[in-house]
Amino acid sequence: MTPERLRALLLDVAEGRATVDQALHHLEGFPVELCHQQGAVVARLDTQRGMRHGFPEVILAQGKQYDHLQTIVERALSRPGPLLITRVTRKRIQRLRLRFPQLEHAVDTGCLYRAEESMAAPEGLVGVLCAGTSDIAVAEEAALVARLMGARVETHYDAGVAGLHRLLSAEALLRSARVFVVVAGMEGAMPSVVGGLVDKPVIAVPTSAGYGAAFGGVSALLGMLNSCASNVTVVNIDNGFGAGYVAGLINRL
Amino acid sequence: MTPERLRALLLDVAEGRATVDQALHHLEGFPVELCHQQGAVVARLDTQRGMRHGFPEVILAQGKQYDHLQTIVERALSRPGPLLITRVTRKRIQRLRLRFPQLEHAVDTGCLYRAEESMAAPEGLVGVLCAGTSDIAVAEEAALVARLMGARVETHYDAGVAGLHRLLSAEALLRSARVFVVVAGMEGAMPSVVGGLVDKPVIAVPTSAGYGAAFGGVSALLGMLNSCASNVTVVNIDNGFGAGYVAGLINRL
Amino acid sequence: MTPERLRALLLDVAEGRATVDQALHHLEGFPVELCHQQGAVVARLDTQRGMRHGFPEVILAQGKQYDHLQTIVERALSRPGPLLITRVTRKRIQRLRLRFPQLEHAVDTGCLYRAEESMAAPEGLVGVLCAGTSDIAVAEEAALVARLMGARVETHYDAGVAGLHRLLSAEALLRSARVFVVVAGMEGAMPSVVGGLVDKPVIAVPTSAGYGAAFGGVSALLGMLNSCASNVTVVNIDNGFGAGYVAGLINRL
Amino acid sequence: MTPERLRALLLDVAEGRATVDQALHHLEGFPVELCHQQGAVVARLDTQRGMRHGFPEVILAQGKQYDHLQTIVERALSRPGPLLITRVTRKRIQRLRLRFPQLEHAVDTGCLYRAEESMAAPEGLVGVLCAGTSDIAVAEEAALVARLMGARVETHYDAGVAGLHRLLSAEALLRSARVFVVVAGMEGAMPSVVGGLVDKPVIAVPTSAGYGAAFGGVSALLGMLNSCASNVTVVNIDNGFGAGYVAGLINRL
Amino acid sequence: MTPERLRALLLDVAEGRATVDQALHHLEGFPVELCHQQGAVVARLDTQRGMRHGFPEVILAQGKQYDHLQTIVERALSRPGPLLITRVTRKRIQRLRLRFPQLEHAVDTGCLYRAEESMAAPEGLVGVLCAGTSDIAVAEEAALVARLMGARVETHYDAGVAGLHRLLSAEALLRSARVFVVVAGMEGAMPSVVGGLVDKPVIAVPTSAGYGAAFGGVSALLGMLNSCASNVTVVNIDNGFGAGYVAGLINRL
Amino acid sequence: MTPERLRALLLDVAEGRATVDQALHHLEGFPVELCHQQGAVVARLDTQRGMRHGFPEVILAQGKQYDHLQTIVERALSRPGPLLITRVTRKRIQRLRLRFPQLEHAVDTGCLYRAEESMAAPEGLVGVLCAGTSDIAVAEEAALVARLMGARVETHYDAGVAGLHRLLSAEALLRSARVFVVVAGMEGAMPSVVGGLVDKPVIAVPTSAGYGAAFGGVSALLGMLNSCASNVTVVNIDNGFGAGYVAGLINRL
Amino acid sequence: MTPERLRALLLDVAEGRATVDQALHHLEGFPVELCHQQGAVVARLDTQRGMRHGFPEVILAQGKQYDHLQTIVERALSRPGPLLITRVTRKRIQRLRLRFPQLEHAVDTGCLYRAEESMAAPEGLVGVLCAGTSDIAVAEEAALVARLMGARVETHYDAGVAGLHRLLSAEALLRSARVFVVVAGMEGAMPSVVGGLVDKPVIAVPTSAGYGAAFGGVSALLGMLNSCASNVTVVNIDNGFGAGYVAGLINRL
Amino acid sequence: MTPERLRALLLDVAEGRATVDQALHHLEGFPVELCHQQGAVVARLDTQRGMRHGFPEVILAQGKQYDHLQTIVERALSRPGPLLITRVTRKRIQRLRLRFPQLEHAVDTGCLYRAEESMAAPEGLVGVLCAGTSDIAVAEEAALVARLMGARVETHYDAGVAGLHRLLSAEALLRSARVFVVVAGMEGAMPSVVGGLVDKPVIAVPTSAGYGAAFGGVSALLGMLNSCASNVTVVNIDNGFGAGYVAGLINRL
Repeated sequence: MTPERLRALLLDVAEGRATVDQALHHLEGFPVELCHQQGAVVARLDTQRGMRHGFPEVILAQGKQYDHLQTIVERALSRPGPLLITRVTRKRIQRLRLRFPQLEHAVDTGCLYRAEESMAAPEGLVGVLCAGTSDIAVAEEAALVARLMGARVETHYDAGVAGLHRLLSAEALLRSARVFVVVAGMEGAMPSVVGGLVDKPVIAVPTSAGYGAAFGGVSALLGMLNSCASNVTVVNIDNGFGAGYVAGLINRL
Repeated sequence: MTPERLRALLLDVAEGRATVDQALHHLEGFPVELCHQQGAVVARLDTQRGMRHGFPEVILAQGKQYDHLQTIVERALSRPGPLLITRVTRKRIQRLRLRFPQLEHAVDTGCLYRAEESMAAPEGLVGVLCAGTSDIAVAEEAALVARLMGARVETHYDAGVAGLHRLLSAEALLRSARVFVVVAGMEGAMPSVVGGLVDKPVIAVPTSAGYGAAFGGVSALLGMLNSCASNVTVVNIDNGFGAGYVAGLINRL
Repeated sequence: MTPERLRALLLDVAEGRATVDQALHHLEGFPVELCHQQGAVVARLDTQRGMRHGFPEVILAQGKQYDHLQTIVERALSRPGPLLITRVTRKRIQRLRLRFPQLEHAVDTGCLYRAEESMAAPEGLVGVLCAGTSDIAVAEEAALVARLMGARVETHYDAGVAGLHRLLSAEALLRSARVFVVVAGMEGAMPSVVGGLVDKPVIAVPTSAGYGAAFGGVSALLGMLNSCASNVTVVNIDNGFGAGYVAGLINRL
Repeated sequence: MTPERLRALLLDVAEGRATVDQALHHLEGFPVELCHQQGAVVARLDTQRGMRHGFPEVILAQGKQYDHLQTIVERALSRPGPLLITRVTRKRIQRLRLRFPQLEHAVDTGCLYRAEESMAAPEGLVGVLCAGTSDIAVAEEAALVARLMGARVETHYDAGVAGLHRLLSAEALLRSARVFVVVAGMEGAMPSVVGGLVDKPVIAVPTSAGYGAAFGGVSALLGMLNSCASNVTVVNIDNGFGAGYVAGLINRL
Repeated sequence: MTPERLRALLLDVAEGRATVDQALHHLEGFPVELCHQQGAVVARLDTQRGMRHGFPEVILAQGKQYDHLQTIVERALSRPGPLLITRVTRKRIQRLRLRFPQLEHAVDTGCLYRAEESMAAPEGLVGVLCAGTSDIAVAEEAALVARLMGARVETHYDAGVAGLHRLLSAEALLRSARVFVVVAGMEGAMPSVVGGLVDKPVIAVPTSAGYGAAFGGVSALLGMLNSCASNVTVVNIDNGFGAGYVAGLINRL
Repeated sequence: MTPERLRALLLDVAEGRATVDQALHHLEGFPVELCHQQGAVVARLDTQRGMRHGFPEVILAQGKQYDHLQTIVERALSRPGPLLITRVTRKRIQRLRLRFPQLEHAVDTGCLYRAEESMAAPEGLVGVLCAGTSDIAVAEEAALVARLMGARVETHYDAGVAGLHRLLSAEALLRSARVFVVVAGMEGAMPSVVGGLVDKPVIAVPTSAGYGAAFGGVSALLGMLNSCASNVTVVNIDNGFGAGYVAGLINRL
Repeated sequence: MTPERLRALLLDVAEGRATVDQALHHLEGFPVELCHQQGAVVARLDTQRGMRHGFPEVILAQGKQYDHLQTIVERALSRPGPLLITRVTRKRIQRLRLRFPQLEHAVDTGCLYRAEESMAAPEGLVGVLCAGTSDIAVAEEAALVARLMGARVETHYDAGVAGLHRLLSAEALLRSARVFVVVAGMEGAMPSVVGGLVDKPVIAVPTSAGYGAAFGGVSALLGMLNSCASNVTVVNIDNGFGAGYVAGLINRL
Repeated sequence: MTPERLRALLLDVAEGRATVDQALHHLEGFPVELCHQQGAVVARLDTQRGMRHGFPEVILAQGKQYDHLQTIVERALSRPGPLLITRVTRKRIQRLRLRFPQLEHAVDTGCLYRAEESMAAPEGLVGVLCAGTSDIAVAEEAALVARLMGARVETHYDAGVAGLHRLLSAEALLRSARVFVVVAGMEGAMPSVVGGLVDKPVIAVPTSAGYGAAFGGVSALLGMLNSCASNVTVVNIDNGFGAGYVAGLINRL
């Protein structure tokens, strides 16, 4: 609950528009919408966020039982606004699209989404770069999220640091974007190099690409946390969603 | 062997009710019941615990070969009292229920159980909360165990700390329970927040929900061990059983 | 802020005893007392907890600059009730006692404290056991905290599992306590053995005693988290305070 | 070298304002200024960054030999503009201030700095929050950097999640800042809670506060990387500088 | 090459029984027997070991391609003496036994073996204990190896430390064996307790039984390495073979 | 982009052979060849490397979606010169060879390749040794790469340090090679022993062979990094490709 | 308590030589001797072990407060038989020897000891080898302990595997000892090589010698746990004491 | 012992120039020179290596007791040829130079050395680069070693990847060296970028520079092991010596 809502609620009580019990009821039930499965609450949807313009409602599919997931998606689709479902397996993508044909699948990612029908023209430029072909899925997830939040997005892929000219060929993008998402696995060096070339915020996403001492993305994560470029912040391994979300937030400022 | 039994045994010897050899025989064979498989001992069942009122006998299925597991379950079912089998795979649940129809399956969990036929009315209130939909399986395991130990249990699910109002809506439960089980994956922050809102013991259960730097529950585990709330203790990752068991024990005090 | 306080505050507003601004002021300032250092807030003391009977106010000295620490201690001493300062270095103990002679030092620990003047007779029995002589400091911290919370405490030290008779000689204590704190370093096996001998909650405290692959307490911590005894929960390495606090809480139920 | 400079250099060559050798000389020597020690290059100062309005030139003192450090500071002070030296030990602070009296020491931090003489009035609001008194040093470092980059900064300290009212009392700040820096040790849960209360970017800084399984900040770091709030990005342990820098960058957008 | 062989070889050269080139040839080719696959050497069998009385020749199946494995087994079977193949998957067990019917499968393990036809009566007693039913496979592997090396073996299974009476019932075995193998997963506490009850060498085998913070046997391994009993040494996780081998060696002394 | 190219480009601009825009175009597009998939760039091939004599063009298959992989392979095959595709699964090997019959499969490895048609006679000798049969796949990958780079390669397999005579029988190879690749799993001791026997560079490759505390090759990796032989450098776990590549480079010097 | 004692105690009770309370008293107090410090028990000495011929009583000094340590040493010295105090700092060695002149200091180690006055002539040969000069302290600790347990000990130091001839020069020792202790830091490869040269048990001791990725002995520890020689078991990092103790035990068989 | 020596020795025996016992004596004592301390062997010097032209004899000071170190240095100085002592603390440098004035101290490093009196003119060029001022000590160690092995060395320091122009200004060096040593801490990205710019072997040295998640060099180490440039091999953290040694070896080829 945001501070604004708390103040409003207190005013309602103070001015007699609400009783204490009503206020407590509000505090308990709003803006959460309950999803039930066999009589039990399996999810509390945060409807408030979804209702603000340009903020997609987001469902993390991974780890949820399919029945729970389907119930939650159904409830979310019953409300207007953009919707995003992340980390959906191939099998579940098929199953969910069969049932909810209004969902679109973003190529190369594990994301299903429904865009806002009357989206404003995108504003601001978010640059999404990645180091190798194996990082494209995560980068595309970031790009999708930033677009759903109203940003214009340009991508530049397979431009890792062992071939600097591949990165430097993105000159126009490096010069013009307001915020960057840089996705890399293995040693995770690309955000440092990009960070040194621009004076804008760089959001680094380590990926689980690589093998052996890549440790499923840990090496890239550590590399990014220790970046010698000061304008780099980091999100979880393979968390294209989070990077795109924050890029979208920054782009709105 | 509990100290009480030791004293009793010594008295028996002292007062001639038992010879030394009988006593040693007792020490070797009681209260353990042996399960054999192809002539070899594959399990030593602790029958004593199961015979005390309200303590379920517990079998951890994971890691056991199916033949061993079935032998042990059969033996355990031959005695009265509540029985609980944890971490059973879907396939084994079907196979065991086919053979032992008296076993019930707890929805959303990997548990099979047989409740005590003449259970007393539950007493005391145990609150079981969880952070996300993905944590429900573990939370339900904890709730089941606490109920088998005679507690009244109320649950409040999908109430993670990034939406505080979802947690604060559990006001009534937070005010009335004697002990709490709080289940969370990812950053594992929920027990700290709950711990700050109540002055009762909070048993924190990290789950393997999450991905990347969640490291299969390690991040949540570390978060809980470092909780800035003083009333939090922790059990193993995904160990809903242990949390429910201790909550049941505390609730009996 | 506890739910009770929220309800009361709303009632005050509803019934005109408080304006909305007063309520917000309350929400901002109460029950927190601010400590300033050179005009800046360096601590927000949670006075509410300290004011409840038998709950000590607790200050973690470690990591705080000395000036900040002294300011906070001074403010805390200006209020009645028990006070506990943990993880104080030898040098700081001397310095603080010189300035605040009312503080007592608990032998063998890094704790300073002020007991409640009119404490009720202790009730309930908490058993505190430890595995080796090196674990005594942590065990004594736990015992001190449980006593400050109104419990009767008995200790049994240097009784590790490689000499079972040393543990079994604690028969009387094992039979009579309501809750146990078991402190051990190295392999951390003692809570499992104690847990198997009693049917009460056991709070395990790993210590940093040991060397090499003890990894500063990590091995003991892992051993305890994987305990095959179901009644064991765990706190952070060397966290005698937390264990004693939870034992005190459980003992009050 | 930024793309703009590359284009300019190429133009100079194309239009005869520079020979190829001059261009290569530029590429080799500019905008880097060399620091020599006993005839050897010990640092290549990036003068370009410092020359842009509101970007401080930054020197990381940690790990450098004192002689190298002093040489570098002397050279940097010879140019105009804001200067920041981070991670300076107490002893070195004294030594450097004795030699360079124009350096100011930021209270509670290991930072020395020289502010820009004619700084514009700060614009935009950056909120810097921290969980405990032990986290103040890192938070103050972040606040200092953001101020040096032209931001208005408000702080709210010792407001960890185990006492939610301490955090909620920052209502005004939570409502008005454009970007947040949240500093926390131990379980690192605070960024998740703050992230759920605001819809602005939150930069999380784990600190090495805590003990035992805090692992020098690793637990807090992992907690933050796994935050269930989508608007959280993370920097290295104790990296107040980086967080303040990115907050300053975002605030300028 | 053992020192004895080196001396013999030098003598042969010195006394003219061998030329230098023959000696080098010996050094290159003996006592190694080469296995070829498609013209390439895929294994160098150490025939010397297998030829000494009572030392089985051992093949680790894991990690080998099936074709390589079969070639090696075939070659080994062409020589007399005991043979042991460890870590064979179920599927490979079937396939190998079909082809080499002289191989026997040890129940509950992944081992195939051929015992020495004219084995002497076993001598000396090796005690093999394990903590839980899930540890039986590893314990049986150890028992098999010790038997192949000529020892008499007695086992006592499912006797973990949370039920001490289950362990103490092995009184006779604890009193009479010359060396012990103790197999345990989870917290790995059993070797410490056994080590305290006997004054013979105890070889501890951690197993991968457990879940969550058991980390595939790492917790048990660390527990054993930190054992407070001085007579405990440790082998790799699930390495029943190695423990049985060393127990067999010790038993021969 | 190599420095030579930069100089050439600048000269072109300076002497009017290229406009600034053409130069930038060059910087953006050369010597990279773009691979498109559904209109998007999925790879930037570094054609320059492949065009130099004896440097194979290399494609890492792992982590790439099959569609991306096939597009990239097709493009690469359209150019002359040696080509190597590493870490290809069995299924993909079949699928790719069906489509591109010109690709050969290197026995025992996951590599597909096309050798240069008119390769010069190999020069210099590279020694490739491995410790166990399970390490052959990685060793063969290294041998293949060194051969593709023009080296003569000799191998000596299954010669681990627990049977020194198996290693010493490689006397001729140890005496004559210019550089060594030593492949080992488990404790990774072989490079230290080889390193002590030769005074040439030794490139150590840890493999994921082993189980339990082998941790997928980490133990071998650590052993090699800590080698007491000074002539040992290390590559990533299972990175036969990298070791062969560097051996090939050194062999050309 | 050993099973023998239990049987004896039961007989005493059965035959009227002891009452039940006396038996319980025995169980509580024997064979443990209590050390008090300021009225509290700080140690329970296991007098039984020390009383058996040739088993030294052992005190681990590390982690104990000096006052506790001195009390324990004083009590132990009051009984006859060999005594060993391990991991004593230089400062404490001086302090303890000043107070207890009967203690001897073993050169190059942190051990104080008192040998048994009338020790029998040593029997059996234990070989103690180490890899580098830095490992001598740990090796000497092992040698001392084995000698205190009645073994004849020969040492061979600084014979690491990167110079095989340094190891092979120990031919006579390798041929004649009954059991080996092999001490090594860095990559910990020496036990594997020694293990391959002998057919006796090898007890491997990793040391904390090395730097960087040696991780304080972890790399050596992992190397030894993964030894490809089957006759190797492992003890904790720097645990010369434990290795010497087990070697002594084995040597007595 | 190298294979050449073995052959020579065998020939001596075969042709009567040596008896078997003499040969064994040789095998035991040559080319090792023993250092004694109080009658015990504390080091076996490998004199053979030092006697070959241009190979320095190397002593690792770290971990050795001072007395042992001094004995070893004295013995080494009694022989001709270059000598290098690494990882010497400041205090020991003073102490050793006082005693052995012929030792020189390499500025900025912990190395003492004695160069060969009649060194040939250096040949071949080794490039030594480092990322930051904090890495200079390690880089200088590498440069010193390569020089002692006869190479010409050029350095380029403080040229990390966040300011690419600082690296690109080393154009001439990048174009002309035969082998590179690249030293970097923090994220360790520099070897990847250098590796992409050159087609020569790159030896990467991670340093312990950095803080927090740099983990004393582990992050840099992991980054380098996962380098996307194929020509990179890695040595231990801070192991400038090893990198310089291998660079020197490669340079001689």
